[in-house]
Formats: sequence, C-alpha cells, structure tokens
Amino acid sequence: MTASSHQLSALAEVRAIDALTAGFPRHPDQWNAPHTSDAEIVRLQPLGSDTYLAATIDGITSEITGGFYRDLYTAGWVLVQANLSDLAAVGAAPIGLMLALSLNTSISDNARLSQGITDALVASGVPVLGGDLNDSQAPSLTACAIGLVQGRVVTRIGIQPGDTLWTTGPLGTGNALAIVRMMGLPDGLCPEAAYRPQARLTIGASVRPFAKAMMDTSDGPMSTLDHLARLNNVGWAVGFDADALVETTVLQAFRSAGLPVWPLLCGEHGEYELLIAVDPADEAALRAIAPTAVKLATATTEPGITLHLPDGRTLAFEGDFIRNLAARTNGDWAAYAAEFQAYGARLGLG
Amino acid sequence: MTASSHQLSALAEVRAIDALTAGFPRHPDQWNAPHTSDAEIVRLQPLGSDTYLAATIDGITSEITGGFYRDLYTAGWVLVQANLSDLAAVGAAPIGLMLALSLNTSISDNARLSQGITDALVASGVPVLGGDLNDSQAPSLTACAIGLVQGRVVTRIGIQPGDTLWTTGPLGTGNALAIVRMMGLPDGLCPEAAYRPQARLTIGASVRPFAKAMMDTSDGPMSTLDHLARLNNVGWAVGFDADALVETTVLQAFRSAGLPVWPLLCGEHGEYELLIAVDPADEAALRAIAPTAVKLATATTEPGITLHLPDGRTLAFEGDFIRNLAARTNGDWAAYAAEFQAYGARLGLG
Repeated sequence: MTASSHQLSALAEVRAIDALTAGFPRHPDQWNAPHTSDAEIVRLQPLGSDTYLAATIDGITSEITGGFYRDLYTAGWVLVQANLSDLAAVGAAPIGLMLALSLNTSISDNARLSQGITDALVASGVPVLGGDLNDSQAPSLTACAIGLVQGRVVTRIGIQPGDTLWTTGPLGTGNALAIVRMMGLPDGLCPEAAYRPQARLTIGASVRPFAKAMMDTSDGPMSTLDHLARLNNVGWAVGFDADALVETTVLQAFRSAGLPVWPLLCGEHGEYELLIAVDPADEAALRAIAPTAVKLATATTEPGITLHLPDGRTLAFEGDFIRNLAARTNGDWAAYAAEFQAYGARLGLG
Repeated sequence: MTASSHQLSALAEVRAIDALTAGFPRHPDQWNAPHTSDAEIVRLQPLGSDTYLAATIDGITSEITGGFYRDLYTAGWVLVQANLSDLAAVGAAPIGLMLALSLNTSISDNARLSQGITDALVASGVPVLGGDLNDSQAPSLTACAIGLVQGRVVTRIGIQPGDTLWTTGPLGTGNALAIVRMMGLPDGLCPEAAYRPQARLTIGASVRPFAKAMMDTSDGPMSTLDHLARLNNVGWAVGFDADALVETTVLQAFRSAGLPVWPLLCGEHGEYELLIAVDPADEAALRAIAPTAVKLATATTEPGITLHLPDGRTLAFEGDFIRNLAARTNGDWAAYAAEFQAYGARLGLG
C-alpha cells in the first residue's frame, strides 16, 4: 500500500463526484466540505447563529433493477429510512421528506410501494411534504430529507487517536440480503421481509453534545469505517468479532448454511446503524443513550485498518479494494462476487 | 362539459398522485394542501411565526429519453431552472439545490451536463449543497430546491372573479422545441440551444406583498391557467392572441414554416415563466416590477376557459382534454400528436 491509498482520492466514486461537481458554486455559509458529512449542513444566517439546515438526497434504483428488493414495499421502506438515517448522522430533527417517484403507474405493485413508504414514515414519526410523480418502465425512487440542527453540529470529522468507535446496533442484515441475492441462495436463508432498517434519529440527536463524529452504515460497516479513517487521517484497530457484531439470526443462518460470515461486515449493502466516535471518557454517556451499542474499533495514529480476530491473528484490511470493486467490475456482478471472495481468502478471512 | 370536468379530480395525474399518497402522514404546520402550491411550504415553528421552509423536487428523465433534449447541457440547465422556478412561484429566497444524478459515468457527455448545471446556477446566483451520484445506462436527473419565505406566503390559491392574470414574459419557447422534436421537424427551426428558460426568482419574491396567486408555466401556459381555474373555482376569459403572447423568434419561425401557432400556447412543455394573478388595482405595481409582463386573462365567476381570438370569435377550451392526453395515449407520441391536432381543428383553432 502506498501512502496515497489512505486518501479520499483513492476511491473511484470520490474522483467521479469531484470531476462532475468541480465547477458548482457553493454556499458561503455551508458548514461541511464535500464528502465530510452524511447530510449537508448550512447555517441559516437570517434565523440566528446556531440554526442550521440539514439536507440529504438519496435514491433507490439499482437495488430494484438488480433484484435485491423484489417487493416494492422494501424499496419504499428503505427509501425513507436511508434518507432519515443521513439526518440522524448529523443529529438533525427531521422536518419532512420530498419524494420523486418514477414508476410504471399502471401496475398494482405501487400499492406495496406506497405502504412501505407510509409504514416507514409512521415508524419514524416523519411526514411527507410533497413530491413529483413520473411514468417510467423501471422504477426509480429518490427522496430528499430536510431537517434542522440547533446548537452543536456533528459531521464525519473530529476523530482523534484513542477515540473509540461504536455501532448503535447489530450489523450485517443488509449484506445478508445482498449476498443471498447475488449468490442466488434460497430466499428463506434471509427473508427480504426481515430487512427493515430503522434510522437512529433519537440516538443521533441525543449524542450530539459529545459525539466526535458520526456516519451511518448505508455502504456497509467496513466501508463506513474506512471512510472515517480517510477523512480524519487516522487508522482503526478493529475488534473483528462476528459474534459480538453481527445480528444473531443472520449469523446463525449463515453459519448453518456453511457460509463465511466476514462478508456480512465487509460488503457494501448496509443496515443503517450509526457509527459514533467518542472520547473514551464519554463511553458511559453513549451507552446510557444507546444500550445496544457495541464497541467496534479504536482510532490509531498510524493510518490503515487492522483487524483483530478472535483467534489472535491481526490482518491489514485495504478498504479501497472492496470500495473500488463495483467501479472496476462495471456492473458484472459475477466478477464482483468472485473478486470479493478472493480478497477475503487472500487476507485469510475465508 | 359536466360540472365535474372543472374539478381537479378530472385529471388523471391528480388521481394517480392521490391514490399513491393517500396514506402518507402530513406535517401539522404545512401551509399548503396537495396540488395547491408550486413548492411545499411549512411553517418553521422553532424559528418564529412568519418563517417558512419552501421545498420542491423535480426530475428530468422523459425529456432526455424521449429525445426532446439531445444535449445534456440543456438537461442540466432545465433541471436547475425547473426547481428554482417552483421556489420563484412562492416567492421564496433559495438556499440551495440538492442533486440526485443517475448517469452513465463512463461517457464524456457528462461534462456537458456539469456545465449546464453550473451555468444555470451561476446565472441564478444559487449554490449546490450536495447530492448523490449513481451509475445508470439511461440518465435520470432529479433535484430538490430548498428556500425560505419570511412574511406573506403566496400559493396557487386566492384568485377571485375580476382578478387579472399576467405572464412574466413571452410564451411558447418550450412548446416550440417539443413540437420540433415530436414532429421530426428540422432542428434549425427552433434550435435546442435557444431554449434556456430562466426562473423568475426576483419577480416572484418582489410581487409577494400583493400577488393573489402564482404558478409557473412548467406544464405549458394553458395547462397552468387551467389548473389555477380548477383550484380557485373560477373561469378565465383569455386574450388568446399569439402576437401579444408568443416569443417573437419562435412565432416567426412557425409562421414562416406554415405551422399553426396555437400549439405554442396549448402544449405541455413549458417555458418557466410565472403566471401571476393580481387585483386590477395592483396592475401598475406588477408592471413596475415586471416590465415585460403581459396580460393573459381575467378571472370569471362562471367556470370554464373561454378563448377570445383576435378575429372576434370566442371558443370554449377544455383544459382536461390536453392534460389527460398523455395518460390516455400512454406513451404513443404519434397518437398524442394526432389527437392534439384534431382537438385544435375541432375547436376551430387550426
């Protein structure tokens, strides 16, 4: 690994975004720089010095066309939760969602989509403000979540060596579904109906006084951790223990089927938990707010991610390998799966 | 025409939206009901009684896949202006745009898209706050514009008989491009590069103290006028004079080519001017703010739209016929064009 592999620019996605957006004008009162926050944060000057708008926009398309979600209920549910999760990661109080739905309006499945959106909104106590409906053969769903932050702002930036990183809940449910679909495994191994992530809005808002940084696991736990390392110029010593980290039902199902469990943590289809970095002195406060929180890693001065396995081995994990895999295999999911597995085997995770 | 044809529910699009969104929770402090405002308006309770969030979400997909826009620069430009135009129609001051771009990231045309977005933002003095980039074969572009309104709120509601309706500028440029594409006419008749609509942000904000109602012409002038009639339970006496209303270059090009000009006002691909309703006592104030404004219609107690032609004839225009045409012809653009032309001929507009 060269030094530059620890930088943000080692990621194909970051380079593509930067190339496309280089000329776009920015807001003079925007708090965050590109890539450094789950939601965009802008100080609302007319409304006082400590009031910030928080906004995020996120779509569900490839998860439907790629066959990960066969029930539009799931797509509707995740559309809502994915956007709210970004607000949770900056501790914002949601105002509401804007929806842009491109649908084949003549099919009856749209009632499932509508129900999934409704149930996710009701579960989160968040309204829809409005939207746009378009006719299209392949469904493409986009939402923009808008909220407010008053007081201290938390982004992905602020982690120092010695800080500890916690997940708000069990990991692996998103990757379990993605693996079942990509490998053509039986649906019953990990039913789609069990994948109902829930944005951690209350926890995100409550830890804002002391959290050093936050980011949700929408792109999978290890990719999230990798991103936080690059942005904060730290490394991570990760307690890579599936028994402590992975959701029990999914872990048992994978073990019973003789499947490796490390992809549940290293894949890129997430579960929308928050990863929260705190000073060790604030760990008790975090656990009081989030009793299900589990410690995942400790920040190190040396860059790079080191996995500490339960059997005592330590492995150097290259976050950019998996994070660049989709761009490198360019839509060839069989090649993606093969390279993914080969990487784990090479590392000694198999 | 039956009484119900004057109601909102006579429109297939309105019925489709209502069916999909019936169960969605609403915000207790939302100012506008569904369909009654170009942008959603929510009172921000924590920020004082007269501060409102304004938000809109709008996409560009069928204009690209349908071949209306052959240059992604146009798609980028219109994506920005379409969203800002919705903010203009409620008199909001923009904070910024959120972008969700689904693109084939490997093609060089994306530089044109990027430039179109940048130029439209710079021309409007509005920043991008952030966004989401996804890979897809067919481009699908969505933006959400967010702004603030402080003080009096203007929506599509508030028109009384006797009020007059004005357009902020010449009409027909959007329909000219759409007609050229749908009829397979030579590109030079109406060059795509001439279609650069500009959201009327300054006018929208300036007329807010006295405007009775506003709506932009994103769906074409006559469809906009039709919508305002349904929502306000009024009719319109329209001065249907192409010489007074249609942009000069486009009007001359169509006449030189022997093409009818009424579709420039009745088609559904708009030019993003604002239609502003005022009390006749405020017409001088409106013209001082918008010197290019032209009077289009006067509200009547009797429902229905009556076209007053320069030759002295009066015709009853059924707004729902054209507005339901896309749903009825279901993607068959040849059938759409044939029915559209036949309607004009039947009415005596040919």
